[in-house]
Amino acid sequence: MKIGVLGTGVVGETIASGLVAKGNEVKIGSREAAKAAEAAKKVGKGASGGTFADAAAFGELVFNCTGGEVALKALEAAGAKNLDGKTLVDVANPLDGSKGFPPVVTNAPGDSLAERIQKAFPKAKVVKTLNTVNTSVMIAPQKLAKGEHAMFLCGNDAGAKKQALGILESFGWKHVHDLGDLSGARGMEAYLGLWLRLMGVLKTPTFNVQIVR
Amino acid sequence: MKIGVLGTGVVGETIASGLVAKGNEVKIGSREAAKAAEAAKKVGKGASGGTFADAAAFGELVFNCTGGEVALKALEAAGAKNLDGKTLVDVANPLDGSKGFPPVVTNAPGDSLAERIQKAFPKAKVVKTLNTVNTSVMIAPQKLAKGEHAMFLCGNDAGAKKQALGILESFGWKHVHDLGDLSGARGMEAYLGLWLRLMGVLKTPTFNVQIVR
Repeated sequence: MKIGVLGTGVVGETIASGLVAKGNEVKIGSREAAKAAEAAKKVGKGASGGTFADAAAFGELVFNCTGGEVALKALEAAGAKNLDGKTLVDVANPLDGSKGFPPVVTNAPGDSLAERIQKAFPKAKVVKTLNTVNTSVMIAPQKLAKGEHAMFLCGNDAGAKKQALGILESFGWKHVHDLGDLSGARGMEAYLGLWLRLMGVLKTPTFNVQIVR
Repeated sequence: MKIGVLGTGVVGETIASGLVAKGNEVKIGSREAAKAAEAAKKVGKGASGGTFADAAAFGELVFNCTGGEVALKALEAAGAKNLDGKTLVDVANPLDGSKGFPPVVTNAPGDSLAERIQKAFPKAKVVKTLNTVNTSVMIAPQKLAKGEHAMFLCGNDAGAKKQALGILESFGWKHVHDLGDLSGARGMEAYLGLWLRLMGVLKTPTFNVQIVR
């Protein structure tokens, strides 16, 4: 599959690496094409670089791996017409780190970044997932507890969620909980507040939660 | 130990039941003493009822089991002088159910109910815990996965946290993660947004998370 990955940070590079390893063709997008080309070089075979718009136009499906605070601007640069009708997998977290560690989740009650993105790009099919784990776990869930831990996913379009689920399963995710429509992203993003404190206490970002019943 | 339990809802009754089962003496407090007396009768031996102030004055330690939206008013009725110097275990969640299910966590970014309580009652030693599970799990963690799942706790006073931890351990909690100072309550309360969606998907409130690393 041809997939656009917006963002050249560690999240973008990780997702791009995971996707090419599974045989997908990836174009990484950045504000500056040169920066994306550099990231693509690190990812290696199957990856190329370009502007945000290049990457979005390239992808049959697009990953938003930009920082939560700049995500809407990056997606504007990617261009609505390059996102229309496509599954847009949003991995970003709306965090404000300006007041020290841990950063603060900036959502107002009853809101989420994913829903703001959906509102700004009504023809994209936004799916929220993968924002609840560190990059060390995202594309390698089997590294922890033989993969016996939980991923969450939500979105308004069933077909888009099925596409995203296929990618998650290709990464090795075995326990993906579909939280329903995109308002499920409120809880998924809010959870970062707990995740960040746990990271501090556990002294590692390489952990996750499993649901027990 | 003599313990005051504020709130006659299912949380208050559950906590009171758990506490008397472990040999503590409990006074349940309510706006109306008659309602508390009724709740105490249900809890049985070791429990009595009274006003919020009666229960707070009685306890060497006090549990806040009132609804999050009325907690500050209930604690005002309990009276600062009856809380001064005491461990105040806050189990409440700041939820607004007025717009349907699931309710919305009402905290502004970077805030929590537990911190608002601490600010309003600076001489109480507020500890946040037990708000992340249903009453079906609170005092009986062994019911799920042989108790192999996580509880969280935070607060500004080490001695108060130790007291709360003792109670958690008496209930059977084996994996209690100390999230540090009371600002850890932001994540613990925010997590409710995820918990509520999961409850809808799992179709049961009787679940919890375990940390895997």
